[in-house]
Amino acid sequence: MYLAAAGWQTRAMADGVFDEMVEITRSLQERICGEIEVLDDSGEFVSTRWDHEGGGGGHSRVLQGGSVFEKAGVNVSAIGGPVPSALSDALPGEGDRFRATGISLVLHPRSPMVPTTHANYRRLERGDDGWFGGGADLTPHYLFEEDARHFHKVHRDLCDSHPEVADYRRWKQACDEYFHLPHRGEHRGVGGIFFDRCSGDDRAWLGFVAAAGQAFLDAYVPIVRRRLDEPYGDAERTHQLVRRGRYVEFNLLYDRGTVFGLRSGGRVESILMSLPDPVRWVSDFPVVEGSWEARTLDALVNPRDWV
Amino acid sequence: MYLAAAGWQTRAMADGVFDEMVEITRSLQERICGEIEVLDDSGEFVSTRWDHEGGGGGHSRVLQGGSVFEKAGVNVSAIGGPVPSALSDALPGEGDRFRATGISLVLHPRSPMVPTTHANYRRLERGDDGWFGGGADLTPHYLFEEDARHFHKVHRDLCDSHPEVADYRRWKQACDEYFHLPHRGEHRGVGGIFFDRCSGDDRAWLGFVAAAGQAFLDAYVPIVRRRLDEPYGDAERTHQLVRRGRYVEFNLLYDRGTVFGLRSGGRVESILMSLPDPVRWVSDFPVVEGSWEARTLDALVNPRDWV
Repeated sequence: MYLAAAGWQTRAMADGVFDEMVEITRSLQERICGEIEVLDDSGEFVSTRWDHEGGGGGHSRVLQGGSVFEKAGVNVSAIGGPVPSALSDALPGEGDRFRATGISLVLHPRSPMVPTTHANYRRLERGDDGWFGGGADLTPHYLFEEDARHFHKVHRDLCDSHPEVADYRRWKQACDEYFHLPHRGEHRGVGGIFFDRCSGDDRAWLGFVAAAGQAFLDAYVPIVRRRLDEPYGDAERTHQLVRRGRYVEFNLLYDRGTVFGLRSGGRVESILMSLPDPVRWVSDFPVVEGSWEARTLDALVNPRDWV
Repeated sequence: MYLAAAGWQTRAMADGVFDEMVEITRSLQERICGEIEVLDDSGEFVSTRWDHEGGGGGHSRVLQGGSVFEKAGVNVSAIGGPVPSALSDALPGEGDRFRATGISLVLHPRSPMVPTTHANYRRLERGDDGWFGGGADLTPHYLFEEDARHFHKVHRDLCDSHPEVADYRRWKQACDEYFHLPHRGEHRGVGGIFFDRCSGDDRAWLGFVAAAGQAFLDAYVPIVRRRLDEPYGDAERTHQLVRRGRYVEFNLLYDRGTVFGLRSGGRVESILMSLPDPVRWVSDFPVVEGSWEARTLDALVNPRDWV
């Protein structure tokens, strides 16, 4: 089993927090993939298990070409080993060995009316210290305000029920700041929550992460169900594919998780599973003033308080 | 006129090298766009002129949805102003003002049998110093060795006829090293020439750049003509779209020109004109051992001496 292979122990490890996080993310992967397969009549996840050169490995599950999801990737991994020199400055703490475990998922629906979403919950340990990070965010191509409000409300309630670790207001703002494309002057979507390098009561954190996995499903699945049958045509499809290009731009130009993954020796196909398919880059793609597309963009340029 | 607007003078500027480079790139843009429109029955370039906030600007020309070229972008720009703080360390030399001018083009043919190509010739000045950089490279999705040899031969002959500045052997190797995707363990294509931060006899350099523009056409246009009618089907088209994904990965993850453009306040749509359309990211896309696709990949993984 890949999880046992990390093969080193420090104080942070010895207390079992890492192992418990591994179990939580693995069980979340199971549950989330199950729900997605229920939503998607025709799609099925394909599994790949992979080893990390420093120790540990991962389990990637990807569904491609489904009726509801054009591409859905749900990864868990638990890797460890010597800190790669390219990452030494980028990692918090001190020590020459690290471990990281987490779940990361990106869902790209086929319909432009169903928003794309991403969630990630992770724990990083270096030397004697450990941190949690993660969040969830929503990227509509055609904004239904009701959906944005619902997604935020569920995550606000999640945070409110874990006051010892979570802070919705702060994390909502951090999410807007993180998922930002400065060259486009816009945000990746309508946000959600984002936190990084958090420590404190490890037990409370583990409880939060377990609850966050369920909250993600409660936030996203109802949106999929109610938007599945919205009609759309070629124009909306084209707009969606162009907007997917912005998603790729963010992930390759700015996303720390992608850079961390590529530099830490993660499995490339698992890391880049986040990229949508297909994608278009139309130069000077027009957005008609006052259109639904323009109203959606406005919400991406000017983040709002949704709850 | 955008070129007069750079509005500052140092020794490097006063000698007229910058202005001459501007003229050369502008005339090359004209000639190259003309040849591409001749090759492409149905496509036409659309022009956009843009201003740079620090001074100067550019002229972008893009052809989309042509019969031969699915997307072709040919940009010239001449910008200047205070060195952006984000770029200060990345730029050579000293001084708090810079100017940059150049031509940059990327051609994405519709047929998977016609290779993608890129060329760029530029001059950068900072304080009292100035440098030339540039090159041209070829990215086949289905390798015809004859084409790779021809492209390299023309560029070798170009270099050999400008021995005072050019060095084919060194630049060929620099090209292989630069257009490299470490996370994929492959190069972007079969190479060409690449040089950066070169100074010396400015007149000789200007002569080289002018000749390089014509050499690019001599290297590429015959390849387009002889591959245009090669048959292909859905499988080859899919392979091409997936390979275009690697092109995007290189440009957004590693290309210094893209990063320079985005950070120096260049026009985003002109910089990202280099990205192909459409593109696919299929997870774990299979390549059959011994296939044409595999043989092409082999040439990308293991750079060869083509001449």
